[in-house]
Amino acid sequence: MEFLVLVLDLIGTFVFALSGAMLGVRRRLDLFGVLVVAFAAATAGGMTRDVLIGATPVAALSDWRYPAITLAAGVISFAWAPLIERLQQPVRMFDAMGLALFAVAGTQKALDFGVPPPMAAGLGMLTGIGGGIARDVLLAQVPLVLRAELYAVAAFAGAAVVAVGHWLQWPPMPCAIAGALLCFGLRMMALRFGWHLPVALQSGGDGEPPDAMR
Amino acid sequence: MEFLVLVLDLIGTFVFALSGAMLGVRRRLDLFGVLVVAFAAATAGGMTRDVLIGATPVAALSDWRYPAITLAAGVISFAWAPLIERLQQPVRMFDAMGLALFAVAGTQKALDFGVPPPMAAGLGMLTGIGGGIARDVLLAQVPLVLRAELYAVAAFAGAAVVAVGHWLQWPPMPCAIAGALLCFGLRMMALRFGWHLPVALQSGGDGEPPDAMR
Amino acid sequence: MEFLVLVLDLIGTFVFALSGAMLGVRRRLDLFGVLVVAFAAATAGGMTRDVLIGATPVAALSDWRYPAITLAAGVISFAWAPLIERLQQPVRMFDAMGLALFAVAGTQKALDFGVPPPMAAGLGMLTGIGGGIARDVLLAQVPLVLRAELYAVAAFAGAAVVAVGHWLQWPPMPCAIAGALLCFGLRMMALRFGWHLPVALQSGGDGEPPDAMR
Repeated sequence: MEFLVLVLDLIGTFVFALSGAMLGVRRRLDLFGVLVVAFAAATAGGMTRDVLIGATPVAALSDWRYPAITLAAGVISFAWAPLIERLQQPVRMFDAMGLALFAVAGTQKALDFGVPPPMAAGLGMLTGIGGGIARDVLLAQVPLVLRAELYAVAAFAGAAVVAVGHWLQWPPMPCAIAGALLCFGLRMMALRFGWHLPVALQSGGDGEPPDAMR
Repeated sequence: MEFLVLVLDLIGTFVFALSGAMLGVRRRLDLFGVLVVAFAAATAGGMTRDVLIGATPVAALSDWRYPAITLAAGVISFAWAPLIERLQQPVRMFDAMGLALFAVAGTQKALDFGVPPPMAAGLGMLTGIGGGIARDVLLAQVPLVLRAELYAVAAFAGAAVVAVGHWLQWPPMPCAIAGALLCFGLRMMALRFGWHLPVALQSGGDGEPPDAMR
Repeated sequence: MEFLVLVLDLIGTFVFALSGAMLGVRRRLDLFGVLVVAFAAATAGGMTRDVLIGATPVAALSDWRYPAITLAAGVISFAWAPLIERLQQPVRMFDAMGLALFAVAGTQKALDFGVPPPMAAGLGMLTGIGGGIARDVLLAQVPLVLRAELYAVAAFAGAAVVAVGHWLQWPPMPCAIAGALLCFGLRMMALRFGWHLPVALQSGGDGEPPDAMR
């Protein structure tokens, strides 16, 4: 079981690193810039979670496999960028798997550190989407995960299953599996059917730069 | 007294969450993206302060009222965006109150953790303006708090009163009240009279993208 | 020796603060905004490192000289912006010195906190380039350090010398000097001869905004 979790965690790291590297390639970063963005995309979520709950030194710094896998993903993206663009369908499926696993594992770790269930679910979501946020902030664009088809929602739903299960004192492993499946399923269905959350009605026209509202 | 501080703190959280949510609505984020930006705007300042001084797990993760209030602010903004746009005047007043309280409380907490007074004042300012910075960075714009009418200055002035008072070993409560009043007053006056700090003279034309200066 | 390190560290802080302040001036921030960006540019790398390894409260908050030097750099940039623009050549040399020192000292500190050598080298690089990243993220542009002539590479090379030396149990001081010289030399040569890392080939045209790849 633990081996499975480790494998999934490393797959998630790899796919998130891939997404960061691909975006870096498109923005014309050089090889090293691509690697930095790949590492940020793969580990920022978990690092932020660890820093906020005080689990330092953060996990991504004590296991050499994370930088190694990130390096591999970065070099692969760099060398075969056009090929990976064409593989978008499988990459998205792996990305949804990574999201599901990160959300569930992040929630579990926060619960283990004594964070109350509602906030633990939030931290689990952050673990899942934090990498994508860091990647997009580094590249000066509004994070896609805040706009994409049920991306953050799926992460939160999966995390919430784990948090509620903990609160009801259910056994953790079935909750983790159920949460991961819910997150993965929601995300894949949202992609397939183009599900979106509603966007608010506005008074003025759209797209104008927001003026000073503080 | 403590009840008053709690109420003001929650009001500050609410108003900062409101400002984040409104900006998210204008940028066409979906409901969940709006909630994430609202939470970042309301809690990033305090979370950064707690992380830098080592007060982990950070406060915003151990009290359920912060996510609850943020959720409320996000849903309200989402549902009644046009209405809130029209209430700009009261929202700005509450925002100035939140700024004053966050700056003063942030300074006090940093002092309690043994940070020397000059840096404690800086951390207090960061507690006040950090949420606005996180909100704007997430939405890929230059933080308004770095350009707005005496926004950061007011936060720093209020924080400095608390820090100097601590250094002179004055009683903390009157210092906190004086600092909060100074911050609030400065900010409201700057808004009313359009006070700005000077902008530096430049050699070239304005507005051109900065080239490589490292 | 320690005095030399301190002097170089303070020079590095000063030059990084200068680079942040100059960019803030160009983006028309007011005096206070300029100071905030200067402080971020000078200390974000070290603060991030300290937070990730759990060395809190972070060093930049326990020594008054860092804010003092940042303040000086900010005021100088603000008052004599056109002059400093003309001094670009010496500023770049000092910046390369700051980069070299930050990278080497950051690696050493991470090793002292028990971070394994490969990740310690990464943290050392982050210490060197983190300030530039924070500066550019605050000003909503893609970090220059991810694109500039061997900037991150030089930092990593210097950091790697220290990490490898630690792993081989060589004496730390010569390793630190060798690492700093390598970083400084690489960066200066890259500037002089316009060395760049390769940028990946892409399938489509360049410059188009990246669409949804998650």
